[in-house]
Amino acid sequence: MLEDKLKNITAIVFDVDGVLTNGGILANEYGDLFRVFDSKDGFAIRLAHLKGYHLGAITGGKSISITKRLLTLGFREEDIYLSSRDKVAHLNDYCLKNDIKPEEIMYLGDDIPDIGVMKLCGLGVCPSDAAEEVKAIADYISEYKGGRLFARKTIEMLMKMQGKWNFDVTEYKDKF
Amino acid sequence: MLEDKLKNITAIVFDVDGVLTNGGILANEYGDLFRVFDSKDGFAIRLAHLKGYHLGAITGGKSISITKRLLTLGFREEDIYLSSRDKVAHLNDYCLKNDIKPEEIMYLGDDIPDIGVMKLCGLGVCPSDAAEEVKAIADYISEYKGGRLFARKTIEMLMKMQGKWNFDVTEYKDKF
Amino acid sequence: MLEDKLKNITAIVFDVDGVLTNGGILANEYGDLFRVFDSKDGFAIRLAHLKGYHLGAITGGKSISITKRLLTLGFREEDIYLSSRDKVAHLNDYCLKNDIKPEEIMYLGDDIPDIGVMKLCGLGVCPSDAAEEVKAIADYISEYKGGRLFARKTIEMLMKMQGKWNFDVTEYKDKF
Amino acid sequence: MLEDKLKNITAIVFDVDGVLTNGGILANEYGDLFRVFDSKDGFAIRLAHLKGYHLGAITGGKSISITKRLLTLGFREEDIYLSSRDKVAHLNDYCLKNDIKPEEIMYLGDDIPDIGVMKLCGLGVCPSDAAEEVKAIADYISEYKGGRLFARKTIEMLMKMQGKWNFDVTEYKDKF
Repeated sequence: MLEDKLKNITAIVFDVDGVLTNGGILANEYGDLFRVFDSKDGFAIRLAHLKGYHLGAITGGKSISITKRLLTLGFREEDIYLSSRDKVAHLNDYCLKNDIKPEEIMYLGDDIPDIGVMKLCGLGVCPSDAAEEVKAIADYISEYKGGRLFARKTIEMLMKMQGKWNFDVTEYKDKF
Repeated sequence: MLEDKLKNITAIVFDVDGVLTNGGILANEYGDLFRVFDSKDGFAIRLAHLKGYHLGAITGGKSISITKRLLTLGFREEDIYLSSRDKVAHLNDYCLKNDIKPEEIMYLGDDIPDIGVMKLCGLGVCPSDAAEEVKAIADYISEYKGGRLFARKTIEMLMKMQGKWNFDVTEYKDKF
Repeated sequence: MLEDKLKNITAIVFDVDGVLTNGGILANEYGDLFRVFDSKDGFAIRLAHLKGYHLGAITGGKSISITKRLLTLGFREEDIYLSSRDKVAHLNDYCLKNDIKPEEIMYLGDDIPDIGVMKLCGLGVCPSDAAEEVKAIADYISEYKGGRLFARKTIEMLMKMQGKWNFDVTEYKDKF
Repeated sequence: MLEDKLKNITAIVFDVDGVLTNGGILANEYGDLFRVFDSKDGFAIRLAHLKGYHLGAITGGKSISITKRLLTLGFREEDIYLSSRDKVAHLNDYCLKNDIKPEEIMYLGDDIPDIGVMKLCGLGVCPSDAAEEVKAIADYISEYKGGRLFARKTIEMLMKMQGKWNFDVTEYKDKF
């Protein structure tokens, strides 16, 4: 049951493209690739960090712009895996490094390279516009699209279930 | 009643992400964050400024690009609060600095950090895609989304009610 | 009647924001503003230029990026008016400079500053998401939105009516 | 029949604007033009390359940013034709250079300059938001829009029919 699985989650690991973005990648003339992140997702991720959830990101993208953005949301640099071509290997590294078990992780992914890692984690969640193959194996399919409230609403669901979705401005302003 | 509250408004204060934008934040490799503003919002804000409304902005964002954009619309630099983690404190500073009472302010916000300040102001308005928690306390929920006519239509509503939504090109061209 | 008005058109003059774009304006940290244009609009404008229509643009925007884009579509630099705060004055200048009468011009606009010039031109056309005040005075309201096929479909309508919507690759490749 | 035509395809050639993007072109102040590509399209193209399909692109666009993006997806630089004003000529060059027959090519296009080349290829496919003239001659009209899963779903259809839509992470990670 979804609630049972949510109960044990202590860490949230994200794919980036199509999860924290709508999948769009802006290419410039130097071959740099830029992404559009969402401010409401950003708030929920900051709040999750504040309440003690461990964050992580495993992405095929390699632009340092991803790291720069995620650092402002509470991710630690060593928990951001860029240029990943084998997400299971990187998830195992993340677990080892942080002494977290896969069952404690909620993973948000949307495409075929996420399937292996989603099966491994305690809870695999995908957006409404995920690839069919991902929807077929996800524990939970959100009604929201990637980059358009998917991460926000998924984190809300987790934190509400665990009684942690509450905001205290004095606490918040001291941490960010 | 909405009309009664609109009657006393002399100042308009904006959150930025999700209000003057659709919430999207473009991250580049230097960690700079860029926003997409809307031209129809821009026209309404310029017109409001021209007709004597006092403008202000309080945002968690910290990019100087926000200031640069808002300055072209009639905001004074000292009324733009970036990197805000305590919006109530900044609203109080804005009121003191400009000798404006909170009851005279229409505030446009969309997410949880806006709630405190929305309750304080004379009128709190949110877009149709605001967070549920914000919709629950807003005086008025617009039918428009952030960055997609929300600010435009809200300013129109205010100025029409006060008989100020009219455009004189000779007046306009001399001010901008 | 629409057909009668279309018959006499020899020039097409465009507002930019909300007409050749969806109204979005990307602000960077230097205060530069960037726009997203549409490739299908671009093709129609190039074809119109190739078939002898005179092009023009009158915009409140001031970014040189607008000029750079329009030059690739067949506009002459002297027919692009940036930073316009009085569009009627600029239209008159355009007519004088090019020996064109306002009745020969189809104008595409979407917001209140376009109203004066739309009334003056032979045909005023607006997108489906134009301001209400513009829709009220437009000769024709397109079913398409600004930046999303509005310019394309409007130019198609004009050129089809005049029997000029046809494409010859040998002719095209020699001009662009 | 569609299946018969799909059977013989060994190469996939793409138009860019409106096919690998939604048609949007971001113009900066130097006249550079940037595009937003899609990550799910990207995955399918990489997988097609991995499974042995020959890739190509013929576009009217001239920004080196296009080349930079496509190189990361498995295209060879000599198979990317920028600034094309005569796509048939470039397709012929592509065929000659790679010893491929037009009947072996699936071409993805969306606008009038693509028509000649689409008629020449073994299979011409267009997105749901293609120009009417293109829809009229396409062998297959996708239900997806350009830049929003059109390329992804078209490649999936081809590879599934040929029994090649399968993903082996160990194979994938060694090639990219």
